[in-house]
Amino acid sequence: MGQDLPHPERAEIRIEAVLAALADPMRLHMVRELARLDTGVACGSIDLPISKSTRTHHLRILREAGVVRIRPEGTSRITTLRRDDLNALFPGLLDGVLAAPR
Amino acid sequence: MGQDLPHPERAEIRIEAVLAALADPMRLHMVRELARLDTGVACGSIDLPISKSTRTHHLRILREAGVVRIRPEGTSRITTLRRDDLNALFPGLLDGVLAAPR
Repeated sequence: MGQDLPHPERAEIRIEAVLAALADPMRLHMVRELARLDTGVACGSIDLPISKSTRTHHLRILREAGVVRIRPEGTSRITTLRRDDLNALFPGLLDGVLAAPR
Repeated sequence: MGQDLPHPERAEIRIEAVLAALADPMRLHMVRELARLDTGVACGSIDLPISKSTRTHHLRILREAGVVRIRPEGTSRITTLRRDDLNALFPGLLDGVLAAPR
């Protein structure tokens, strides 16, 4: 749990991977919650009707695509949305996604 | 070829379907070309290293997601990007995607 997880640098983030990461309803829900809370959250604190391993799987896809950053903090992991990186690379994309009707 | 193809109404367009449609490199290339040409184009006029049936498959996914409109014109089909619908539903999304580094 104390290990750093790998994240793409800003220049390594690919639009196709970001779009694929966001295209899943559960991951989109996570991203909306992260945007709404607007602060780092412990992985378990977003209420989701899925198992811990499925949650970890979705968070890994979001992390590897460059959508979220996950840092260990004590025995938990804190997840934040990479707003600055996404806005710099794809201006408008995240806001457009978040504005979508449910 | 003279038949109208089904398209979702604006209110029926779902963000998850749009993101999934755009997440494919070939479809993203088609969308970039449609945006660049900024006019309706015959399906065959976008240069792509894929077969006609693969092209048709990708265009169907884009059409069903609400990303493009395809209308028959004589013996060909003209494809246009649904910019107005996408901008109204997800302001910034399309521009953000088109701004992405290649």
